[in-house]
Amino acid sequence: MAAGPGDSCFEVEYELFLEPGIDAEQVARNLCLEQTVELSDDLIVEEALRMRVVGRIVSLKSTGRNLHRLVVSYPWAVAGGETPQLFNVLFGNISMKSGIRLIGWSGQAECLPGPAHGIEGLRRLCGVPHRPLICTALKPMGSSSALLAEMAYALALGGLDIIKDDHGLANQDFAPFAERVPLIQAAVARANRETGSNCLYFPSFTAPMDRISQIRRCSEKFGIQGVLVCPMLMGMDSLRYLRHETNLVLMAHPALTGGFFSHPHQGIAPGFLLGTWFRQLGADASIYPNVGGRFLFDLETCHAINRGCKESLPGIRPAFPVPAGGMSLQQIPQMRRLYGDDLIILIGSGLFREDPDLTTAARLFRRAVEEPIQAVEASP
Amino acid sequence: MAAGPGDSCFEVEYELFLEPGIDAEQVARNLCLEQTVELSDDLIVEEALRMRVVGRIVSLKSTGRNLHRLVVSYPWAVAGGETPQLFNVLFGNISMKSGIRLIGWSGQAECLPGPAHGIEGLRRLCGVPHRPLICTALKPMGSSSALLAEMAYALALGGLDIIKDDHGLANQDFAPFAERVPLIQAAVARANRETGSNCLYFPSFTAPMDRISQIRRCSEKFGIQGVLVCPMLMGMDSLRYLRHETNLVLMAHPALTGGFFSHPHQGIAPGFLLGTWFRQLGADASIYPNVGGRFLFDLETCHAINRGCKESLPGIRPAFPVPAGGMSLQQIPQMRRLYGDDLIILIGSGLFREDPDLTTAARLFRRAVEEPIQAVEASP
Repeated sequence: MAAGPGDSCFEVEYELFLEPGIDAEQVARNLCLEQTVELSDDLIVEEALRMRVVGRIVSLKSTGRNLHRLVVSYPWAVAGGETPQLFNVLFGNISMKSGIRLIGWSGQAECLPGPAHGIEGLRRLCGVPHRPLICTALKPMGSSSALLAEMAYALALGGLDIIKDDHGLANQDFAPFAERVPLIQAAVARANRETGSNCLYFPSFTAPMDRISQIRRCSEKFGIQGVLVCPMLMGMDSLRYLRHETNLVLMAHPALTGGFFSHPHQGIAPGFLLGTWFRQLGADASIYPNVGGRFLFDLETCHAINRGCKESLPGIRPAFPVPAGGMSLQQIPQMRRLYGDDLIILIGSGLFREDPDLTTAARLFRRAVEEPIQAVEASP
Repeated sequence: MAAGPGDSCFEVEYELFLEPGIDAEQVARNLCLEQTVELSDDLIVEEALRMRVVGRIVSLKSTGRNLHRLVVSYPWAVAGGETPQLFNVLFGNISMKSGIRLIGWSGQAECLPGPAHGIEGLRRLCGVPHRPLICTALKPMGSSSALLAEMAYALALGGLDIIKDDHGLANQDFAPFAERVPLIQAAVARANRETGSNCLYFPSFTAPMDRISQIRRCSEKFGIQGVLVCPMLMGMDSLRYLRHETNLVLMAHPALTGGFFSHPHQGIAPGFLLGTWFRQLGADASIYPNVGGRFLFDLETCHAINRGCKESLPGIRPAFPVPAGGMSLQQIPQMRRLYGDDLIILIGSGLFREDPDLTTAARLFRRAVEEPIQAVEASP
């Protein structure tokens, strides 16, 4: 599979899970038609159009009991250079068919610029060249902006690299965006002056369409350097838009993506959606529910997301994988061993459990990533 | 379940599918926390915050083997009056947990205005008071704007009520939006002058975030009266945005929604997502893959979508259900019997199969909805 920007086609990989007796070749042919012309083959009157538009089977192999691996080549022309239509070609109508799972692709396009900062850039912003970055979430929803700012100050003082809003902090009355963001940003800046560090604050930006275009003005006004975004709630193109319109660090949150992961033989492979695709759209970091937390993914899935974030893609910066979802300090050595140190470790409520004093809790967190893994494991 | 705009809470219904031995009460309590504060119960220090923010179990009943019906009440304050965060509360993080299915809600909010036109309004625009409206899709992708306009003229001449673009027509070079739309709109207008009818053309508007704000100017410039939208590809808030910013008829397409429907005990009930929710966001009509076509839904699911579109919701106009996805003229009597005549029947490639002359094919389509059902069934 290879499809660079200069090629006229891109290739997409699907897994087919078919009941015995179903003709895989026929299913594959129908998929190629469904995702492009939405006509059955006999209704395509013009042969040139078929060449110009219809998906083409590159390979179809049986890979196990009822399982087949299908690679389809689509002409770039069908995407029109826009990500909503591109994703429509990848998985729009066939999301409603059974036994088809989108595994990945190797396409690149101008509309998929990848991270503006990536791992290197974000490390530079934080001033942390090697160890995992550490991150927590301001919560709970319902707290006042002043209280959240107080928390942020205490946490930044303890040495966190990134403090993000809980993804449920939108624009509610108890802490409206325009009130909360400057207060927290100022609190973190005050801590940075005291520590000499460069902790970053990423407000949650789950905005309706009316508010998304205000982001550039907001980010300049409040001096923020990054945001937390829920692409599935706002529309996946929101990531690309924010990448295009701003210079913000973009941290993607997987809220609402679970629908695509609930069936083993349908939907979208998490390594593609949360790894490759969010990264290509512009995410500098992608949060995923880590194995051993309160969500569902197994280790193989987590590794696939890490690969999607970091594997070599020509011209596209690697992004930080962000294991999360019920982690505790005790899991840090394991995470470092599994995924390496190019990692943002996100611990939310597990951090609050470490010590009632948030600065102390943050210091414990920091210590766990500064020591070599063996030393951390040996500590009591 | 009842939650009007004046109430301080809204209620959401979930189905839980739990392995034997799992405590349903505990799962329900965790859900209430996960969707709001994202803290475990013992970490909520302030009792007043719990009352103000955390979801509350209204009822939890066993409904069958491993199945439970859960109703949760959430304070309106957690949604902040914006649809992305509102949907986040309904299903954001728990989309990534197993055994939880979003069934429905009965909330209403200012940010959910419902259809601007609805069934009555769209019937008025088409000048069709009683019979089902008939609709087809311009295809295939890859055709020139001129060819699509020619097709539209022939189809409008035959008596179609609505001609929409295939949902894969975005902004590709072979028929760019700004070229295709005025050509087709003019072709349909010419046919309307000849027939005295009022066939409507709905271009497909699957736009990236940059283009969505141009819609008002586009619609005024080109004189279009409606658009086809893929909310899951563009972001679900796109529906509400288009409802708010324009007076266009909005026809919703289910592309990419299938991820939520692939597992019987996870995801989102199609009746809620394609029926109630799209309607509340502003869809005047919602396309769904009908039973007996090339997609998956069973009859019960289709009925649930019809109910979601048409059941009484205070202050919200009913929307047209639009059965589609591989329909033929032969299925019209059955569709009318199943769903009644407040219906838009969408036949795409099945229509092209009726007669190579599109005007003739459209006339056959029109005849099938003008006759009483019995007469249609009796015809050879």
